[in-house]
Amino acid sequence: MSLDNFFNPKSIAIIGASQKKGKVGYELLKSMIKAGFEGEIFPVNPKSGTIEGLKAYPDIASIGQVPDLVIIIVPAAFVSSVLEQCVQVGAKAAVVITAGFKEIGKEGKKLEEKIAKIAKQGKLRFIGPNCLGLIVTENKLNASFGGDLPKCGGTGYISQSGALLAAILDMANAIGIGFSKLVSIGNKADIDELDVIRALGEDEGTKVIAGYLESITDGNAFVREAEIISNKKPILLIKSGGTSAGAKAASSHTGSLAGGETAYEAVFERAGIIRCNSIKQQFNYAQAFANQPLPAGSSVAVITNAGGPGIMAADAIERQGLTFAKLTEETIEKLSKVLPPAANILNPIDVLGDALADRYEQAIEVVLDDPNVDTILILLTPQAMTDSVGTAEAIARIASANNKKPIVACFMGASKVEGGVQILREAKIPQYDSPESAVETIKVMSDYIRWRSRPKRVVKLFPVNRRKVEKIIEKHIRNEQREVGETEAKEILEAYGFATPKGSVATTAEQAANIAQQIGFPVVMKIWSPDIIHKSDVGGVKVGLKNQKEVMDAFDLMMYRIPMKKPDAHILGVLVQQMCGGGKEVILGMNRDPRFGPLMMFGMGGTMVEVLKDVSFYLAPLTASEARQMLINTKTYKMLKGVRGEEGVDIDAIAEGLQRLSQLVTEFPQIQELDINPYVVGPGGTVPIAVDARMSVEKI
Amino acid sequence: MSLDNFFNPKSIAIIGASQKKGKVGYELLKSMIKAGFEGEIFPVNPKSGTIEGLKAYPDIASIGQVPDLVIIIVPAAFVSSVLEQCVQVGAKAAVVITAGFKEIGKEGKKLEEKIAKIAKQGKLRFIGPNCLGLIVTENKLNASFGGDLPKCGGTGYISQSGALLAAILDMANAIGIGFSKLVSIGNKADIDELDVIRALGEDEGTKVIAGYLESITDGNAFVREAEIISNKKPILLIKSGGTSAGAKAASSHTGSLAGGETAYEAVFERAGIIRCNSIKQQFNYAQAFANQPLPAGSSVAVITNAGGPGIMAADAIERQGLTFAKLTEETIEKLSKVLPPAANILNPIDVLGDALADRYEQAIEVVLDDPNVDTILILLTPQAMTDSVGTAEAIARIASANNKKPIVACFMGASKVEGGVQILREAKIPQYDSPESAVETIKVMSDYIRWRSRPKRVVKLFPVNRRKVEKIIEKHIRNEQREVGETEAKEILEAYGFATPKGSVATTAEQAANIAQQIGFPVVMKIWSPDIIHKSDVGGVKVGLKNQKEVMDAFDLMMYRIPMKKPDAHILGVLVQQMCGGGKEVILGMNRDPRFGPLMMFGMGGTMVEVLKDVSFYLAPLTASEARQMLINTKTYKMLKGVRGEEGVDIDAIAEGLQRLSQLVTEFPQIQELDINPYVVGPGGTVPIAVDARMSVEKI
Repeated sequence: MSLDNFFNPKSIAIIGASQKKGKVGYELLKSMIKAGFEGEIFPVNPKSGTIEGLKAYPDIASIGQVPDLVIIIVPAAFVSSVLEQCVQVGAKAAVVITAGFKEIGKEGKKLEEKIAKIAKQGKLRFIGPNCLGLIVTENKLNASFGGDLPKCGGTGYISQSGALLAAILDMANAIGIGFSKLVSIGNKADIDELDVIRALGEDEGTKVIAGYLESITDGNAFVREAEIISNKKPILLIKSGGTSAGAKAASSHTGSLAGGETAYEAVFERAGIIRCNSIKQQFNYAQAFANQPLPAGSSVAVITNAGGPGIMAADAIERQGLTFAKLTEETIEKLSKVLPPAANILNPIDVLGDALADRYEQAIEVVLDDPNVDTILILLTPQAMTDSVGTAEAIARIASANNKKPIVACFMGASKVEGGVQILREAKIPQYDSPESAVETIKVMSDYIRWRSRPKRVVKLFPVNRRKVEKIIEKHIRNEQREVGETEAKEILEAYGFATPKGSVATTAEQAANIAQQIGFPVVMKIWSPDIIHKSDVGGVKVGLKNQKEVMDAFDLMMYRIPMKKPDAHILGVLVQQMCGGGKEVILGMNRDPRFGPLMMFGMGGTMVEVLKDVSFYLAPLTASEARQMLINTKTYKMLKGVRGEEGVDIDAIAEGLQRLSQLVTEFPQIQELDINPYVVGPGGTVPIAVDARMSVEKI
Repeated sequence: MSLDNFFNPKSIAIIGASQKKGKVGYELLKSMIKAGFEGEIFPVNPKSGTIEGLKAYPDIASIGQVPDLVIIIVPAAFVSSVLEQCVQVGAKAAVVITAGFKEIGKEGKKLEEKIAKIAKQGKLRFIGPNCLGLIVTENKLNASFGGDLPKCGGTGYISQSGALLAAILDMANAIGIGFSKLVSIGNKADIDELDVIRALGEDEGTKVIAGYLESITDGNAFVREAEIISNKKPILLIKSGGTSAGAKAASSHTGSLAGGETAYEAVFERAGIIRCNSIKQQFNYAQAFANQPLPAGSSVAVITNAGGPGIMAADAIERQGLTFAKLTEETIEKLSKVLPPAANILNPIDVLGDALADRYEQAIEVVLDDPNVDTILILLTPQAMTDSVGTAEAIARIASANNKKPIVACFMGASKVEGGVQILREAKIPQYDSPESAVETIKVMSDYIRWRSRPKRVVKLFPVNRRKVEKIIEKHIRNEQREVGETEAKEILEAYGFATPKGSVATTAEQAANIAQQIGFPVVMKIWSPDIIHKSDVGGVKVGLKNQKEVMDAFDLMMYRIPMKKPDAHILGVLVQQMCGGGKEVILGMNRDPRFGPLMMFGMGGTMVEVLKDVSFYLAPLTASEARQMLINTKTYKMLKGVRGEEGVDIDAIAEGLQRLSQLVTEFPQIQELDINPYVVGPGGTVPIAVDARMSVEKI
């Protein structure tokens, strides 16, 4: 859907325009006029007359033409009839500013549903209700009561909080941040965040999309489309309200480790969205993305006129995992010619406290040519000789001739560097108030470019026995059994290509010995009873049984002793199972997020998983490289690769396990939670074994 | 040492005062006069005459009285003779602004040593050289060239970077931060950071000490004294240059895990110092500490006029581990009376977008009385009706009548809230530009108050066999052996009360069986040869030997097989050792930091320690509660307490082990590195065993 009627209207009706100062209907009209909107404006007010020199109409029908966009500011009770009138005249787009809907409770929710229905039937799209309005700087359109029309710029903004948008506009004006469009989406009764993000994605004037969101309407569509948009331009989001997640009782390790934030983190990672923690941080990132080229890599050169800030920047570069650019011999030689002998010509390049603009200029030009440098950070502190204006002018000159490498600045101080900062802003050089925030921004740019150059997502489909899984799941749902027992859980896994320990249940000692003989020694024996959960507590687990005699002894001892300890337990026999020793234990898991679907987990296995929390999450379906990345994102990975000379395990086999599991939970949305723990993996070539599994299903 | 001559001089000589504008000697004198210093100022310049209306003297002797403080701005080559003259007239205090000393290399270093010697012999104390000067706002003393005299305030500042101090002054002026004293310490040839911090600690006008440091001169004294000062007032430090640590090759796990930052983190934790990552963050913290009472606890109430920022604050509170205040029934009832029905009267309290100052005022007063609230955070976004000035005045009124609970504000926006922000600043209400930074500051205050109320440090001394350790260490140092072998390392540990596995080396199968019999079964057997490092590779380790027969068989098999695999190895016998199974493996370690001494480590043991990095560090000597805290700071702790019904291990026994180790390394500074790994611990009442140990010693 295009939002052309919203972003590029030629005529606008303002229903509820008022003659009274202080009223929203007056302030909004005033904002429109003051901003200099070049299309037609039709105030609509039952009293007619003129408002601020414009002829007012008693209703939309009286205008005599269909306005491209209608702004509605009438009281909540009248919104539905106004919308009906809009539909009647054939209007296609509206912004409902009026509050008093879903946000006030049940009555308001009904009203909101009613207006949404009217609009839908009448094929009218609308923003709101309960929003601050819409601003399109290019068209001098300010249909909001958020303040003056902001500067034009490359950032498109979307906000779910009107009040916050007002503060954002005010802050942006103060530091000279410019916008292409600003949309206050309010209650999202029709147009939602994704509609706006999609439109901003297609909008030429928008170089970077930024926003504040509290909720996401359609999780799956959001992930799918945001990923495509992120490939074209960065999306910077503040997502609040994440920590107070719905507390659904989880029965798996994966479920209990996947908090409310986990899903959003996985979504943002998958879709390449850059998460911001504050408006300040968002502005920091936006000004760089909107105005500078993307860096080719992660190496940074720092040019400073003082040691202290240079060290602070160097610390931040190391902390953020960026690379401190190693200057070429040629650069070092050139620098030694243009800088005084006392200057530090290694990175960070210290042009010294008495540097004027020329010394900065020469240093920047030399460093810009260095193939080892991806981004240049220029630090300046106001010292006795410092020429902040001249230096800013020099930077602006160089930046306007260069559009290959990002240049960012940090002029530290306030009134003493004000002139310089002003020039930097006009020249669209990002300016930061601390080396740390400059470096943080460089880090985010370098991460984004890496995300964009990730391999194409290809999800491999394994040949599986889908029918078998279907049957088991259907049976559970029919019987209203949420938890799938170990045997059937393993059957499901086997159907998707997992190996499980060989073995079966014996009812006599001789049978146990035969089973063991077939499996091969050593074996594990486990008492088999639906009534005994903690098997080891009753002596119901024996490991490392090496021959038939030991198996038979163990069988008879269990059968003799356990009924004495658990007289009421219904004992079905003893499970004789292949012993999976020697490998490493990991966990593969899935927890289904109500908004975003299956969230895959990988981590160190065993009972330690919830203690160490060394796990990583990713949205299903997984590609091979995503599955591998999930492993790399844990500390366990190093262990799996082999520590201190120890042989490593088959990493690819684990990644394949994750992909198979991802296929299973994608094909069966009934599966709510799933753990394979431990998943025992050995060296390359061996087959990993799903020793224990836990699974729950639900009707969908 | 008091810095009274520096902080409270009645007369100041400026040697190197100049008539030429733009020269430091002129600018500094001008700053002095402009600031309105009320004592006497004696410009000293060989050309005499008058400078800026003040009589100039040809040299310090001609003044005819001894100035309390001398500011020296002459070129580097003349500083030593000027200092000699100062000493001759009996001056006691100087600030050497002049640069061109240690920072320019070898020649400068010599010159610096020379002036330090002159001063020391003449009992003259001095700040610098290579510094920006000294500012004392209370005395209108601005002996710097950093700019105008800043506002008076509760923050005492110390900076190792002159250039940064200039930027800091400029930023502080812009946002109205006030200072008591500012000291640029330059090269610290005499007075160092600790002298200044100590003086600021005793200074009544200083409520909070803040600083930027690149190095610490005397690590041990710093830790000792900073801890005492932190008990009186908070110390906020930016410490840069930490990440590029001296890369000393480490042979222990502890050594390789203790990076350059680790020691500083341990020092700051021990001394209660609050570490800041940027000047902005430091100012954020300083304004709260300088102007607000400390909170009694960690619970926060939020009052807002918009939902979005309220959620952002709530997220930040949860993320920072603070408590969201649960308002009392009484508070809720009172709020329901003063606020409109649509307002949210639960925390965060939403006074609604149309709130004027009175609604804020009433809400704040009610919440301030709530015993469940420790800190109040007031958020304001500029909406149509918002009265930022009136609200700020109301907050100021309430805060001036209340001095029990901290109140902090976040008025979001810029020009629209400027008037309110100005009033907040004058009323000394900390104002933040985002909910996140406000909450971060509350967190730091609440951590500080918890640090201050920590139990008194009492280091327990265990009875040990010091003489035995002395002998072993002396022998190693005499023989220039850095690494202490396993046997002697264990003897050292035994001397300090550690249990090591029982066992000894057997040379015949019968002897092995006898040893095993004495130890008790099962036992472990290890081939004993200085030439075989990887014992298991040659079949040189057997575990779980259950009777004399198995021991004898194992002995003979090793003696038969290993010489075939390693014909050149000199085999001394087989070590028969107690088997320490069943417990959990942890690591206790120590790495000696060149500046701060022994750094203790605790973590999960085994080969996994360097992979999982689940370790914690603390400075020795340890108290019982510090040792316990080291355990709690790791994830391993939860495992030790017992996971999923499993029995926990003896936590106190591990803590005691750390304390004993701490005593050992404190009493023997020759010990450079030490690992006990694994340290096997069982349930309460069992004795933990130091299974393997690694130690290195050096002559000191």
